[in-house]
Parts: sequence; structure tokens; C-alpha cells
Amino acid sequence: MPRYALRIDYHGGPFAGWQRQAGGLPSVQDAIEQALAKLEPGPHSIAAAGRTDAGVHATAQVAHADLRRDWDPFRLSEALNAHLRPASVAITACARVPDDFHARFSATGRRYAFRLVARRAPVTHDRGLVWQVLNRLDLQAMRAGAAELVGHHDFTTFRSTLCQAKSPVKTLDRIDITEHPYPGGIEYRFDLAARSFLHNQVRSIVGTLERVGTGAWSPADVRAALQARDRAACGPVAPPQGLYLVGVCYPVDPFAG
Amino acid sequence: MPRYALRIDYHGGPFAGWQRQAGGLPSVQDAIEQALAKLEPGPHSIAAAGRTDAGVHATAQVAHADLRRDWDPFRLSEALNAHLRPASVAITACARVPDDFHARFSATGRRYAFRLVARRAPVTHDRGLVWQVLNRLDLQAMRAGAAELVGHHDFTTFRSTLCQAKSPVKTLDRIDITEHPYPGGIEYRFDLAARSFLHNQVRSIVGTLERVGTGAWSPADVRAALQARDRAACGPVAPPQGLYLVGVCYPVDPFAG
Repeated sequence: MPRYALRIDYHGGPFAGWQRQAGGLPSVQDAIEQALAKLEPGPHSIAAAGRTDAGVHATAQVAHADLRRDWDPFRLSEALNAHLRPASVAITACARVPDDFHARFSATGRRYAFRLVARRAPVTHDRGLVWQVLNRLDLQAMRAGAAELVGHHDFTTFRSTLCQAKSPVKTLDRIDITEHPYPGGIEYRFDLAARSFLHNQVRSIVGTLERVGTGAWSPADVRAALQARDRAACGPVAPPQGLYLVGVCYPVDPFAG
Repeated sequence: MPRYALRIDYHGGPFAGWQRQAGGLPSVQDAIEQALAKLEPGPHSIAAAGRTDAGVHATAQVAHADLRRDWDPFRLSEALNAHLRPASVAITACARVPDDFHARFSATGRRYAFRLVARRAPVTHDRGLVWQVLNRLDLQAMRAGAAELVGHHDFTTFRSTLCQAKSPVKTLDRIDITEHPYPGGIEYRFDLAARSFLHNQVRSIVGTLERVGTGAWSPADVRAALQARDRAACGPVAPPQGLYLVGVCYPVDPFAG
């Protein structure tokens, strides 16, 4: 069966997360599998690079699907988008890939972005698309806190107690924090990159760094929390609606050329 | 009665436009006047710098209101935002202004932005917030077309037949068109500035320049359309959901300091 890689963009708001749910709750995976079933009889079972939680968005999730027919990749993406309407899920790229390509296990890197807006007035255009706080944050302090987390560490403090990864040890390659103009306030954008992330790791890190930004925590408190290797030492977990899966890396880019 | 200037951010999607409607349709003006009535008995009647159409957004509309009490401006904006919930309207700044300040008649400049996204897959995060087309546009051709419109002209071609302005002659100070990365596509952002605009002028200009971007029109066709001084010579009017009122200028910035 020919295998296809799909690059997927979605608004996570209406979904209980990427993964198909036992109780029939809407999931992004299920929406795409149902669209595939309109093209070829199912059942279909697709695998994704990152299993995003309820309310988390993606601009470039990657999944793979096995189909019977030999589809032209562009026609396949167009047909899927037609069947996905009106769900807030869209296929932005599609490519035929070798049989040993696996969206999750072949991935060598993931990139997440987190949008945090500080302003007094409630956000209007970006409801459900950002985490809003009321007051400006200390950018330099947050950067100093983030520097404590970059590198090879035991991230037990920064992962959900539900995390199923065998090891809490990960290498966090990058946390960049930048400021951007925002009407009536300011936007902080966090860009994180790693080979892979633990469950709730990005939201746990951003929630903790926000505490540093307010002055409630010092950058040294972040180091102590990391060294505690104790979930109870983590700051609050940031809400899902600010989080975006923005990129997945493979040894060979399936969508190039 | 003390006069207050309000800077207002709104998602135009739920509204029939800025202006209070005879038939009771929801308007931004009415939402704010109802919030004012929660603070002081009405009726209230506020005036805005730009009367945006149904579906058009604002990040920095300006209006003024006369109140009986001497409000602290910050407390006034906080109280209005509390009463505006859950409407997608927010007061991002508030200031006491002199009695001769008029949000519309004192304004010496307006800035509008228009977001146009070109990609095959339906947009997900930005539904109702951009105009989507399917194919990339020719940026240089659109800039050449825009250059034909900058300056002092009779804009009869580019105004609604419903426009109530006494004269169709306006000075368009600037049309900047820039490209920005967009997942699975590209975004074109149009930034326009003038002392004032005619009804539907920005959407008429953007709709016409999009025709230039596809190659259906040449930049010289834009000049011919302008010189025709005939509404029938205009290209299609761009849809409202890509348009944002992003700034209003006054001789003295009411919100400075």
C-alpha cells in the first residue's frame, strides 16, 4: 500500500486533542480518518508526529496514512480538504513517502511556539488562540529562567504525571523568547525546539517562566525546580490555547521538491 | 459634561458594522452605548473616527463619549470592559479630552490594514480574519498598480455608490504591500493611510489590486480605471473580513502620556 505524509494545520479549540478518543469526543485524528474513509473504505489509522492535547493548535503537524490507490499527492490533499470542511482542519502539503517513513518514529525534531499576550482589555481577534495575562512581563528574567532549562536534563518536574515516556531525560535545544507589538498590550512568543518533548513539557515550562516574568519566581528558582525532579516543584501549567506545533524535522524533508 | 476618548478593538464578525442600526441588528456602537448605560443612565450617543462596515475589524478605532461623572480614565475603561463581556469589543485605552475634541472631525489621519492570504487549503486559525485566495499573487505588479493610486485623485471609481462624502477627491498618502510567511501559503498585507477614506475605498482598491496580482489586470488598467471616474470601472470589492482600522491620528494624541 502506498504511504503518504500529510502536513496538517488545525485550530485545536473544537477538538479533544489529536488522538482518537474512546468516548467519541471529536479529535483531529478522527476528522482526518473520516475524510480518508470518504476516499477509500476504512478503517484507517494514521500516526502523527506529536499527539497534541485538547485545545492545542498546529500549523505543521505531520502524519502518515497508507492507502490502496496510487493517489496524486496534490489531488489527495485537495480531496481531503473538501471532505474535511467545515472542520477547522486543513492539509497544507501531501507527499508520497517510502514505506519505512513513520511520522512519529522517523521524526528527528519538533518545534513548538507559545503565544502569550499581556494586556488589560480582553482579547477579541485572538480568543482561543493565545494565553492572556493582564500585566507586562520581565523579558530578560524569563530569558534567564529559560537558559536554566536548555540542554540535557531530567525533566521530571516539567512533565505530566500522566506522561508515558520511558525516560524523563530529554535534550531541550532551544527556548527563544521574543516580544512583539500587540494592540493595547504586548505579545511574548516562546519558540522551543527538541528532538522530542514530554507530555505537557512546553506548557509546564511556559507556565513556570511566566511566574519568572511577573517576579514571583527568580531564574534561580527555575534551576531549583529542575533539580528537584519533582512534579510538585513545577509552576502552574500554561493553558492549551496558546500552544502551537509549528514544525517537525525528518532526516529527509518529505515535502521538499 | 466631561468628555472621554476611547480606543476600541473589535472583531467585526458578529456585528452589522460600527453604526447603530435601525432594525436592532447588533452594532459596535450599540454595544458600547449599552455598556455606558450600565455606568450612567442614558441615552448615550458616541461618535467614532471611522464607521466600519459589517464584518470589518478594528484594532484602534477611536470614539468619544460625554459622561456626567468625573471618571478616572483607567477605571472607566475597566468598567466598560467588564460590561462589554462577552461581546468581542474591548476598550484598550481611555483618556479625558477637551470639550472640543471630536473623534471624527478632529481626526487628521486614518490607517487601515488588509490581510490577504494565498493558499490552497482552507484557513483554520484565521477564519473571518483574512481574505483567502487560492494562488500566489505578483507582488511587484500589485505595487506598480498601487503606485497609480497614491496621491490626490478623484476616486469615484473606488467608492461605493452609497458613499455620502460630498467630494470624491481624496489624497491617498500611502499603500504599502508586504509579503509575510504563512503556513502552507503566503500572506500579503496592505497598509493604507489617508486623511480620510471614501465608503468602500480600501476594499475597492484591494479587490482591484488582487486582479493585478493574478495578472488579469495590468498596472496600466488601474490607471485607466481611476481616470474613468466611473464606479463600473472598478475591480471586484474585497470582502470585509480582511479589513482592519488600525490607527487614527489627531493633532495631539489623546492617549499619550
